[in-house]
Amino acid sequence: MGLPDVQSWKPRSGFKLTRVGIKGIKKQVYIKRPDRTVQLITTMDVSVDLPASKKGSDLSRNSEVIEEVVEQSIREPSPSLEALCSEIAEKLLQKHEYATHSEVHASADYFLDRFTPGKRKTMEPYRIMSDVFASKGGKIKRFIGVEVMGMTACPCAMETIREAYGKDLKMTHNQRSIATLVMESRGSVDADDLIDIAEASMSSPTYEILKRSDEKDVVVQAHENPKFVEDVVRDMLANIIKKYGNLPDDTEIAAKSESLESIHKHNAFAERKTTLGELKK
Amino acid sequence: MGLPDVQSWKPRSGFKLTRVGIKGIKKQVYIKRPDRTVQLITTMDVSVDLPASKKGSDLSRNSEVIEEVVEQSIREPSPSLEALCSEIAEKLLQKHEYATHSEVHASADYFLDRFTPGKRKTMEPYRIMSDVFASKGGKIKRFIGVEVMGMTACPCAMETIREAYGKDLKMTHNQRSIATLVMESRGSVDADDLIDIAEASMSSPTYEILKRSDEKDVVVQAHENPKFVEDVVRDMLANIIKKYGNLPDDTEIAAKSESLESIHKHNAFAERKTTLGELKK
Amino acid sequence: MGLPDVQSWKPRSGFKLTRVGIKGIKKQVYIKRPDRTVQLITTMDVSVDLPASKKGSDLSRNSEVIEEVVEQSIREPSPSLEALCSEIAEKLLQKHEYATHSEVHASADYFLDRFTPGKRKTMEPYRIMSDVFASKGGKIKRFIGVEVMGMTACPCAMETIREAYGKDLKMTHNQRSIATLVMESRGSVDADDLIDIAEASMSSPTYEILKRSDEKDVVVQAHENPKFVEDVVRDMLANIIKKYGNLPDDTEIAAKSESLESIHKHNAFAERKTTLGELKK
Amino acid sequence: MGLPDVQSWKPRSGFKLTRVGIKGIKKQVYIKRPDRTVQLITTMDVSVDLPASKKGSDLSRNSEVIEEVVEQSIREPSPSLEALCSEIAEKLLQKHEYATHSEVHASADYFLDRFTPGKRKTMEPYRIMSDVFASKGGKIKRFIGVEVMGMTACPCAMETIREAYGKDLKMTHNQRSIATLVMESRGSVDADDLIDIAEASMSSPTYEILKRSDEKDVVVQAHENPKFVEDVVRDMLANIIKKYGNLPDDTEIAAKSESLESIHKHNAFAERKTTLGELKK
Repeated sequence: MGLPDVQSWKPRSGFKLTRVGIKGIKKQVYIKRPDRTVQLITTMDVSVDLPASKKGSDLSRNSEVIEEVVEQSIREPSPSLEALCSEIAEKLLQKHEYATHSEVHASADYFLDRFTPGKRKTMEPYRIMSDVFASKGGKIKRFIGVEVMGMTACPCAMETIREAYGKDLKMTHNQRSIATLVMESRGSVDADDLIDIAEASMSSPTYEILKRSDEKDVVVQAHENPKFVEDVVRDMLANIIKKYGNLPDDTEIAAKSESLESIHKHNAFAERKTTLGELKK
Repeated sequence: MGLPDVQSWKPRSGFKLTRVGIKGIKKQVYIKRPDRTVQLITTMDVSVDLPASKKGSDLSRNSEVIEEVVEQSIREPSPSLEALCSEIAEKLLQKHEYATHSEVHASADYFLDRFTPGKRKTMEPYRIMSDVFASKGGKIKRFIGVEVMGMTACPCAMETIREAYGKDLKMTHNQRSIATLVMESRGSVDADDLIDIAEASMSSPTYEILKRSDEKDVVVQAHENPKFVEDVVRDMLANIIKKYGNLPDDTEIAAKSESLESIHKHNAFAERKTTLGELKK
Repeated sequence: MGLPDVQSWKPRSGFKLTRVGIKGIKKQVYIKRPDRTVQLITTMDVSVDLPASKKGSDLSRNSEVIEEVVEQSIREPSPSLEALCSEIAEKLLQKHEYATHSEVHASADYFLDRFTPGKRKTMEPYRIMSDVFASKGGKIKRFIGVEVMGMTACPCAMETIREAYGKDLKMTHNQRSIATLVMESRGSVDADDLIDIAEASMSSPTYEILKRSDEKDVVVQAHENPKFVEDVVRDMLANIIKKYGNLPDDTEIAAKSESLESIHKHNAFAERKTTLGELKK
Repeated sequence: MGLPDVQSWKPRSGFKLTRVGIKGIKKQVYIKRPDRTVQLITTMDVSVDLPASKKGSDLSRNSEVIEEVVEQSIREPSPSLEALCSEIAEKLLQKHEYATHSEVHASADYFLDRFTPGKRKTMEPYRIMSDVFASKGGKIKRFIGVEVMGMTACPCAMETIREAYGKDLKMTHNQRSIATLVMESRGSVDADDLIDIAEASMSSPTYEILKRSDEKDVVVQAHENPKFVEDVVRDMLANIIKKYGNLPDDTEIAAKSESLESIHKHNAFAERKTTLGELKK
């Protein structure tokens, strides 16, 4: 039909662009876990760079690449969310032949079975994320991340109250907290393990079902394990070294903790962005 | 210029519509408080009904009415958010001469000075809202509402732990809570009073600044005053009767409490929609 | 172990409550469709009423009921989202023996295969919702709803421009629109059909992948089919009568259209809440 | 009273932290504009770094610094949002004597008078933002940013339709778009100018009130000025050089355009992060 290729026209102002793409694409994808296949509803952002000489990036190619990889995951589930995102990132570079970089960001609800202190089984919701950065020439950086809700109990108020009222009082403010752990996926980094690490780094995990005796145990555990947002981040980092200390020194890591302070209308947060090598110094 | 009046064309399918309007209009408005003039950034939704015989509601008239009332509030601040919304609702009926009903919904951040237990002054953020429903013939219903963050401490976990570990232990889970109180504005109902009632109905108010000794006092107060979401709603209702018990029996009231449970990933909530007469039975 | 039953204590202020429950519970559930089983990630709110004589509603029972019904849907997929919500609503009344009403609200992303004008297959995202209200004694009201994104082109600007510049110009502003259609689920009301109706009521459906020729066809279709938000609602209502006109007269219907106006910073919306009987008058 | 200083205790795991602070603090602040004083409702995030040797950052100091600077802006309005944020950043370093870096992020609704094509005055809403990064020793980096809603009309669909149906047809899809422009504040960079640049870079500005004749003019202007998200970013960059080309070469700039595609359910976006020197090459 000979439609005009407007995107290849010379742009009015000749600047290259860092990222051109599409945001908020929702897709059902299929991922292999050791014991099962999991369906995820992911929300994705994908982009490539654009040289100064090109007016537009053909955005419909992005949708096509996503559709292609998603369709394939229905027939053969991808080993992981980051593997699926990597495949999209690599195909973006192939389809946009002028591009030197591509990026894919994806996040999804994710569920795991857990057991309350009283051994009651409950299915708990988490978020998993992946960020992939690919470059022409084959260099690719994959990140896998998790977001975990839990509980923190404040050590400072607990100590102040203990000093004021005597040793036996363990009263303090506690609150819903969100721990985020993102790591470069080298070798065998697994989302389930990152969730375990993030969850274990708070004062207590939380659960969707708690009978009275369970509730007591969760509250007591949180008070025996009081933590600042700072402690949550540091404990995630210490656990990352234990679990993944043998990965290369330049493996990048970002750990963040945010607590919905019960005594304030604002949140508290702490964060560390670093490499494994830096951490091990 | 004789532009075509497409809105007055006969619609293809002759159904009347309950509401036609615009949403998410942001405006700076000016409100009188006893001791000062307050500038609010409101977000508004406004609408009128549309008869079956009319294809379209001329939506630009809505914007014009809002602009007119807002401009006027700059010159002479409105007595209250609900007074300003009432004026818009009445003018909507005048401008849309075919309409029999109009509605205006507005909400805004709002700030009040508070004092921590240790008498430190702090400026605390709240939300105020207004809903106004006007009918041709002059009938008008005005609501004023407030949304207040505070803290609740769970009486159930506290009691379970007390039973298990002995009388002196007041340990429990506590969390950020949101109390919402909406009331028909008859006579002298005032947003500041509704905020006072909602804030006093939780286990403790919360503050943007708390030094260590203040923090201790807030935590202790919350633990001496443990409350379910149910208790928060009931205490708001009891306080409404105390403060506004002399208003007409058909005065409508909605009270809601929602807590960001520290031991769960979901929220708990309780709600009562009723009239003053029902409450006083 | 004889834990104290704090919830059954006498409340301080003896008011009954309209709703007490939990919000934002995320669950994976399984639903039968004519040709396949679909996994949904639902977000649910559930509640029951509470008599004046009871201090608290045992909220852990809500989580247990949800978990029970969700587990069962894994073994045997539920016929529909509203069937699953109905089962939860009925079990809530059984477990909370003091309650006279229960409510369940659920929503989920949902995907359907579509074909672009050029016959390219694309998987499109929608939202489906269900609201269920159950009463002691067996009365139950089920609603099924859908939220569909599409495109509207404004008939008013088109006509004004035509008048000003001549007959052949079909230029107008167009924009992303959201149509919401909620209906009491009597007999054979099906979410897929409601999605079809909502999607067909806008100026054009939209698609995640459009090659240049497809894009042209979508734009042309939208301009040949210009619609106000008012038209979208009325066309949904007309289509509801065509498809479901034989359902009982008291069948409740809510239709809403909201457009992210390209020429304004605010949205336009239209809405009708009614019954089938009213519509057929 | 000799309260225990828990924050100065030795942390369990000795890692330094990149950022520790508070998020989502809402404050009323006062800013000078050439011709008036403006009240903004800002939402702020503030933080400092924390050495490995320190268990906790005393977060109440952050609130105190904010309150102090906010109080001062009531008595004497700050010259700009970035000046106010700079003052907070510098005071954070003074109060947290162990910190080597501080960060302040703030955003607020902001309003400007505009005139429609038909010269009707209308008050339009925008967002302004500031990011400030301060280091011990006096180095400080200030950014001022704006977010502007407008309209883009797609050049590609317009051209395809023109080819298919003939020269006179200017039909295309158009949509609400959001342009974001953030720039290092060196010398005389002003938020109002950045808003002008962002607004002028789209196919047309949009307005809260448009009478029929105005609406026609806005639609026609957008169709005479079709733009990809890529074009919007490039035109912002070209205008930045025109306005601020004499600022130092290392002045950092980030420009982004996102369009709520009317023909898709996802958004398109383009972005450039660069320095003035890079742009001028």
